[in-house]
Amino acid sequence: MRCSTVSRVSSVQPNLADEFDLIKRLFVPLTGGRAEALGLTDDVALIAGPPGQSWAVTTDAMVAGVHFFPDDSPDLIARKLVRVNLSDLAAKGAEPSFLLLATCFPKNTDESWLDRFASGLKTDCDMFGVAVIGGDTVVTPGPLTLSLTAVGTVPENGALLRSNARSGDHVWLSGTLGDAALGLLVAKGEGRALPGHHADALLDRYRLPRPRVGLGPRLRGLAHAAMDVSDGLMGDLGHLCRASGLRAEIEAESLPLSPAARAALAAGLGEGLATVAGGGDDYEILFTAPPEAGDALAALSRDLDLPLTRIGRVTSGSGAVLLDAEGSEVPLPRGGYNHFAGGAG
Amino acid sequence: MRCSTVSRVSSVQPNLADEFDLIKRLFVPLTGGRAEALGLTDDVALIAGPPGQSWAVTTDAMVAGVHFFPDDSPDLIARKLVRVNLSDLAAKGAEPSFLLLATCFPKNTDESWLDRFASGLKTDCDMFGVAVIGGDTVVTPGPLTLSLTAVGTVPENGALLRSNARSGDHVWLSGTLGDAALGLLVAKGEGRALPGHHADALLDRYRLPRPRVGLGPRLRGLAHAAMDVSDGLMGDLGHLCRASGLRAEIEAESLPLSPAARAALAAGLGEGLATVAGGGDDYEILFTAPPEAGDALAALSRDLDLPLTRIGRVTSGSGAVLLDAEGSEVPLPRGGYNHFAGGAG
Repeated sequence: MRCSTVSRVSSVQPNLADEFDLIKRLFVPLTGGRAEALGLTDDVALIAGPPGQSWAVTTDAMVAGVHFFPDDSPDLIARKLVRVNLSDLAAKGAEPSFLLLATCFPKNTDESWLDRFASGLKTDCDMFGVAVIGGDTVVTPGPLTLSLTAVGTVPENGALLRSNARSGDHVWLSGTLGDAALGLLVAKGEGRALPGHHADALLDRYRLPRPRVGLGPRLRGLAHAAMDVSDGLMGDLGHLCRASGLRAEIEAESLPLSPAARAALAAGLGEGLATVAGGGDDYEILFTAPPEAGDALAALSRDLDLPLTRIGRVTSGSGAVLLDAEGSEVPLPRGGYNHFAGGAG
Repeated sequence: MRCSTVSRVSSVQPNLADEFDLIKRLFVPLTGGRAEALGLTDDVALIAGPPGQSWAVTTDAMVAGVHFFPDDSPDLIARKLVRVNLSDLAAKGAEPSFLLLATCFPKNTDESWLDRFASGLKTDCDMFGVAVIGGDTVVTPGPLTLSLTAVGTVPENGALLRSNARSGDHVWLSGTLGDAALGLLVAKGEGRALPGHHADALLDRYRLPRPRVGLGPRLRGLAHAAMDVSDGLMGDLGHLCRASGLRAEIEAESLPLSPAARAALAAGLGEGLATVAGGGDDYEILFTAPPEAGDALAALSRDLDLPLTRIGRVTSGSGAVLLDAEGSEVPLPRGGYNHFAGGAG
């Protein structure tokens, strides 16, 4: 179960939503201890699927003015909604199949807007081989509010859980970090000194996540634990550590940055590591794997033409810490890595 | 796929949402022709389940100020959300298993409100034997917005589809009709002349639907086609007729009314048949069955202590019509039965 906290476009701060303990207290009793719920500590639920398979099921909600700008292009809003959910499936090693879409459209939403929204959905349904199989359409007096349930297959007992990290694992990350959080700042009008191609690259990463659907299923058998990074690397890693009962140490120097992110940070955009390691909307896969998987992961990275970077290690203990080149802990805002509510929002 | 249109607490009229053709044009292409989607014309999608079973999956969204009053009791809001979805499953003959809950809470929602909301969920999870297995929790600058995905089991090829009515079938309805639509009027301050116990009974039916979870699975093998009545009997029956390529004639005299509804109509509450047959939120099961199932249905009604009333018949042709005692068509507002957007809202 997700409880989104960061990288928001407005000042609507999740004064309740960052209360993970509250949510846990409220909702975990509703699981009735069913194994399918994974204790509400993972990205998906797992229910019986076709023979030998499980269905991974995930739900994400997005609200105009919070998760995207109300005047964002409707096709990009639709595609982001799809991709945010597919990212959850990918991070579990699942292959996406179906979507159920609940839309709350503001009254007077015009037909051309709806056409473009549906067109964006169609683009991504085709691109990712998924089909909309149900949903609900209502009208709201409030902002556009979207909720998507995505369903995918994963071999029985083959899902990459948050809880399966082992001491001695290396911590890996796909792609690059911080682009979306920096892109959000660009969208808010910051970073005007940044060359246009860099600004565009960051904006694009913010507006159109790249769910790592090609990577996720191929991590099965290589990775121990995995999750998608949506609410900021260190906060999300903290959840993985908690689920696994272990500690992770991340080397700040190793964090993979795109040329655009490097240029943006050099130009003073954002708060440095706080934005990179605490900002959200990365939609990369964070995973742990035993050291001996290193060669196979390097080969997989080449095969997919996707960077896979070793960024740290799993040890006994608890918590997720960011270390500088001297091995000292890097202080991050708000005194911890769990609640970056104010990070980029 | 649902496209809710009626019995709304505010004047937010679904100027787009009653455009079934638009929604169909927008979303049906997204199904990719997958059988699981049932052409987006039914209450649920059906995906492969445990051996010999399918999962029936449905999603419904509810918005404060549209589907319930913002100051409604949080436990009742939660329970209505659950029940609206369980009603969809029941109408397909499915037994409920799991829920995934996407909540968009207004900022500054206080903890005691959340406690009561969760308490309502717990009550109904226990009552109906379902478990929350996932979801998402975000904060919204708009009204409380809830979306629930419910998952239940039904024997493979055993679901009661809208499309399976046959000419010569009788049309049946569970429970009583119009109580919720009249209850909504009471909630809006009308019907002050109505005796308190009747007003309370109607209010209760509006606030706390009774999903017919005991009935639905037992209709398998007896009923041909079924759906839940949520958006008004005649509009919903129109969908069933369209899905089956047939016509249905309903005898107005036969519509089952509760004592409270009779008293309310006698007191001038509502618009008579327009409210009863066009209002929403009934959450009864509308089904068709061959005449020879009559005895078994009568026995089932006794066994469940739940009225099952024969209200009409299925013929060749198209459309759903309401007939008076002389067999003349009863005119209903807005010139048709599909779009009761203004009926009770």
